[in-house]
Amino acid sequence: MKSLREELWFDIQGRRGYLNITPQVAALVKKSGVQDGLCLVNAMHITASVYINDDEQGLLHDYDEWLEKLAPHEPVSKYRHNRTGEDNADAHMKRQLMGREVVVAITNGKLDFGPWEQIFYGEFDGNRKKRVLVKIIGE
Amino acid sequence: MKSLREELWFDIQGRRGYLNITPQVAALVKKSGVQDGLCLVNAMHITASVYINDDEQGLLHDYDEWLEKLAPHEPVSKYRHNRTGEDNADAHMKRQLMGREVVVAITNGKLDFGPWEQIFYGEFDGNRKKRVLVKIIGE
Amino acid sequence: MKSLREELWFDIQGRRGYLNITPQVAALVKKSGVQDGLCLVNAMHITASVYINDDEQGLLHDYDEWLEKLAPHEPVSKYRHNRTGEDNADAHMKRQLMGREVVVAITNGKLDFGPWEQIFYGEFDGNRKKRVLVKIIGE
Repeated sequence: MKSLREELWFDIQGRRGYLNITPQVAALVKKSGVQDGLCLVNAMHITASVYINDDEQGLLHDYDEWLEKLAPHEPVSKYRHNRTGEDNADAHMKRQLMGREVVVAITNGKLDFGPWEQIFYGEFDGNRKKRVLVKIIGE
Repeated sequence: MKSLREELWFDIQGRRGYLNITPQVAALVKKSGVQDGLCLVNAMHITASVYINDDEQGLLHDYDEWLEKLAPHEPVSKYRHNRTGEDNADAHMKRQLMGREVVVAITNGKLDFGPWEQIFYGEFDGNRKKRVLVKIIGE
Repeated sequence: MKSLREELWFDIQGRRGYLNITPQVAALVKKSGVQDGLCLVNAMHITASVYINDDEQGLLHDYDEWLEKLAPHEPVSKYRHNRTGEDNADAHMKRQLMGREVVVAITNGKLDFGPWEQIFYGEFDGNRKKRVLVKIIGE
């Protein structure tokens, strides 16, 4: 069994942002030498997501508006979590809606994707450095 | 390490639909010869889901109504994504709520399930052929 | 390839509850002897979740309130699923929002976590014994 473990670091400016990280993950798959296996990509922070969807600017705008509707940032005081001095309770909800992780098949040494699948890092409490873990196992 | 990679194709009539694909996945586990490992099942399209829940007609109706409430199809014009000529922005949201993928343990050559777990393909933008990827690794 | 498969049993009192099960999962990783691999943790029941987020009491309260808003228990009669004699249709929705499973990397014999990541069992239809599956594969 071969394996590879690396961290990707991001520092999204602004409270929220959506970044296509497919090229970085694909490069790590190549580096791993794994031809056949699984690639786990997960946010290491609990107010961020890793998800797979379309790289289309209108959709990213729609996601942001939709997440804000289902889990509004304001009023900050309505969340008990924010009594700890944080103001990011909504980010913990948004992260659950979009998910923590994706598991992607590796076939013939590449991410085994459908035509429009792209891996995104979703940030819901930005302006700080945060990490994504990439773990690859296979042969 | 053994592995198997296959695609399942579906063509759901109507905009949305929910299909129990457990028998097809179970057959692939058997075909793989893997006794002990993991089975990844993911939608290869970004307006569809693979999820695990109950095969009960009332629940499928409730899911559909609930998804339409949290991410309505109409008005189509409220989504910026639909300016691209699509009308499926809501399907991208519904897919995030239900999830892209499931990872199921394989034990003694079988899907290692609780009593009511069934794998479903959830279609949110149908009337076209779409694929699900099954990737199995183990020994 | 090494592997380990164990069940964790819980009996949450009350309809809903959120339990940090990280210590139990970490103990199983140690028991497995796997230094490098993947750990799947999933609810074996379809009205419960396994998810990763913060172990903060205010946040657990906020999650519960938020889930009840997005997928209300009442009125029980509005869900077709409940015509089967159940009253837990809302629990099937809440479970989809929080997710069925997590896949966690194992590195150097330990759960490879960011600073605040904790594994939770989320119960949405309690007062009965239910199981979580832990499946570990690697070397």
